[in-house]
This record gives sequence, C-alpha cells and structure tokens, in this order.
Amino acid sequence: MHKLSEQNYIHQISIDCVIFGYHDKQLKVLIPKLHFNGDFWALPSGFVNQDEDIDNAAERILQDRTGIKNIYLEQFYIFGKANRNSVDFINRLIDLNIDLVGKNINIQKEYDWFTTRFISVGYYALVDFAKVIPQKTELDESIEWYNINDLPPMIMDHNEIILKALETLRKNLDEKLTAFNLLPETFTMKEIQELYETIFDRTFVRTNFQKKILEFNVLERLEKKFTGAKNKAPYLYKLK
Amino acid sequence: MHKLSEQNYIHQISIDCVIFGYHDKQLKVLIPKLHFNGDFWALPSGFVNQDEDIDNAAERILQDRTGIKNIYLEQFYIFGKANRNSVDFINRLIDLNIDLVGKNINIQKEYDWFTTRFISVGYYALVDFAKVIPQKTELDESIEWYNINDLPPMIMDHNEIILKALETLRKNLDEKLTAFNLLPETFTMKEIQELYETIFDRTFVRTNFQKKILEFNVLERLEKKFTGAKNKAPYLYKLK
Repeated sequence: MHKLSEQNYIHQISIDCVIFGYHDKQLKVLIPKLHFNGDFWALPSGFVNQDEDIDNAAERILQDRTGIKNIYLEQFYIFGKANRNSVDFINRLIDLNIDLVGKNINIQKEYDWFTTRFISVGYYALVDFAKVIPQKTELDESIEWYNINDLPPMIMDHNEIILKALETLRKNLDEKLTAFNLLPETFTMKEIQELYETIFDRTFVRTNFQKKILEFNVLERLEKKFTGAKNKAPYLYKLK
Repeated sequence: MHKLSEQNYIHQISIDCVIFGYHDKQLKVLIPKLHFNGDFWALPSGFVNQDEDIDNAAERILQDRTGIKNIYLEQFYIFGKANRNSVDFINRLIDLNIDLVGKNINIQKEYDWFTTRFISVGYYALVDFAKVIPQKTELDESIEWYNINDLPPMIMDHNEIILKALETLRKNLDEKLTAFNLLPETFTMKEIQELYETIFDRTFVRTNFQKKILEFNVLERLEKKFTGAKNKAPYLYKLK
C-alpha cells in the first residue's frame, strides 16, 4: 500500500467519490469511517498524479475501493469554497499522531500538504451492489454501505457533496438511462420501477411507468423469470 | 494591473470562461488574442487566490473582462487531461521574452508555475452584448467577439471547452430558462424565437414555440413595441 506522501500528486486538488449501490429496495452510499480518535466519516477520496488524467484518477480510486473495474462514473461538480476544510478536521489531522496500520506516523511531517485547502472534483459512480467488495485504505477504520436516508455526519462538505450527487443522478436518469447500472444483468419491470421509486423517493403508476421505460427502446425482453407460479411469472429484461 | 506572478494563487488550477453574447442573430463568444509572436487565441482565463471561493474567482475574472457585474455564470465541467497543455504553447511561453506592457519580462523566471500542468474549471457566462465593454489584460493583444460558427483556432483544448459549453447551454436552456440573460431587458416573441433558433441552429414552428415559451409562465407582457405600423406592432415582454 502506497503512502500518500510518497506519491507525486497535484497539490490542493482532491477527488471525492459518491458510490451509489442499490440493495433491499434502498439506495446506498459506500462510506469509510476514518481511523482517528472520534467519529469521522468521509467520502472515498484520493488525489491526481502529475501524469494522470483526472478521469483515470477517479477510476483508479473507485477500483481500489470497490474491487471492480469498468464502473459507470461521471464527474458532476467542483467543490471550491475557500473555507470548505473544516478547522476541526484539520486540527485533528495536525494534532494527532495517528496509529496507521500499526505504525506511528507523524501527520504534521508526512502529510503537511494534506492539510492545506483542497478544491475537490466530485464524481458519482453507479455499481452493482452484489459485485462490490468494499476495500479499506490505510486511513480507514471501516467501510460500509449506508442508506441515503440515514447517512452518518461527515467531515467538511461531504454531506452536501452526496446531496448534489443525488440531485445530478435524478436529473440525468432519464436522459442517460444510467439507472440500469445499479441493477444486476437481468431484471423484471417491477424491479426497475422499484429502483426508480427509491431514487426519486416517490411512487409511479405502473402502466405509465412501464410505457415510458419501454419507449426508451433500450431493453430486450428475455424468458419469464422462474417463480414457481407459471402464469403470473414476470418477464426478465436486459439492456440491449 | 497585477502581475500574475505576484498573486498568491493556487497552482495547477485555472478557470476558463466561455462568455456568450447574442448580436445580429448570431451567438458570439468573447475571445482575446494573446500578445505573443504568432497567432494565439485563448479563452479569458485566470486563477484562484488561496482565500477565494472558485465561484468568486470566476466572477472576478468575468467582471475584469466584460466591465459588468452580476453576470449569469455557471460552472459546467472540469478539463483534467494530463496532456492538455500543448507542448507548442508551453515552448512559446518558455522561449519567448514577451514584451508585456512595454517591459521585457522573462517568462521562464517570473511565470514558471504558469507552464506546469493545469486542471481547468470551465464556466460559461451569458451576457447582454450591448452592455459589455471588452477589457484586455497584460497578456492580450486584442479581445473580440467571434461568431460561434467562425471561431479562431485556439490554444490547448479551448475549442473543445467552447463546444462543451455550447452543449451545456443547450441542455440547460429550457430547464433553467437562462436564455433571457442574452437579451436586453425587453424583447418581442420573435426576438426570443430567433435567439433559440440561433442557439440550437434550427428553426421552430412559430405557434408551437410561442405556446411553449408562454407555458413557462415567466414572462410579463408589456405595451406594444413602437414600430410605426400600429396594427401589426408586436408586444414587448420582460422577465417577471
């Protein structure tokens, strides 16, 4: 595992990733808890190497945290307020000698650039929940999925970043048909509708919803799903 | 006028502004020509002070270049490819001792950080063409409005940045009703339609277009425009 301080990163630019998954009819976000004294949750984040495209940096970070490749991800906003680094968080970084992976690391010496102001590029990712194996970094105590309606209190503006990501996800959902990235390879019409209802936090009329989805003309109908009840079994679909 | 090198800017982050204006039924972009040997056009650009929000930095740059305040502007994309600084452009910066504002300035010494890789935050602005008084900086030979269909060849990825801005402008036009920022305070329905037709580079059916615009319910109808021909004079509108 690389130390942050050993990399040739661009200073003062970070990448924050909002990783959305869908499970048990809940929209979830993958969030690490930091390895500090006290309760500190922060988005999966990282930095950009001098010779690396920012999109590639985001892909690398996402792959590191989820264990999967070829993730759907999209840059959605830059967070650039001058005061977005909370004083409390920076003080903790500076004051604490954090026991990282069993070694005492002097955060002030080795991570000095880490405590300056950062402008953060927000990316959101849509992943198949079942395929993700959440990965900790040296800074993390744990990493867990949290329901979007029941997020922990997060450092800096990270709660705001999640809200902006959700807003963008909703806005782009129809236009870019991205929602299917949250589902397994095959799914029923009911499962699509439940996903949309979860993301938009509202209900849709079944017939209208089905008509609208089919009009996008992106789905291929497969065999019926095996449910035991032959006549009522729903069709499975997949993306064309 | 401040020298770039004297400011406490965040290194490796720039702001590039696509300033749209509308005149003579043409969508135009305000573009400076750089004060180098050879023909170099570049978007109005700038940097972010350490204690400055990025939105405020963009406002400052826009105000400096247009002479007007309270401009409609929107962050639309981050350009972060590792190789976006063209070698040719950087070589010119490094090799030339540029005669800036009558003084020989050694670009290599004073502007060294200026030749590193930059990640650029793209903002687009919509301005009332008639109100803008284009302003040069110390780096500019001239600054002019160019028709969107007849842009000069620009440095680095600046042509691509303009295309992305135009794409975003089109996408957000209905949702955010931003187009009115390109018109004077009062306008006729025909003038709105001409503006939309220019931006989308297509024609609309008059009755349908008028219906759609009025359904947004954001316009207030004023007196008829004085044209001399009393009966056929069109109504003026303004934003509510």
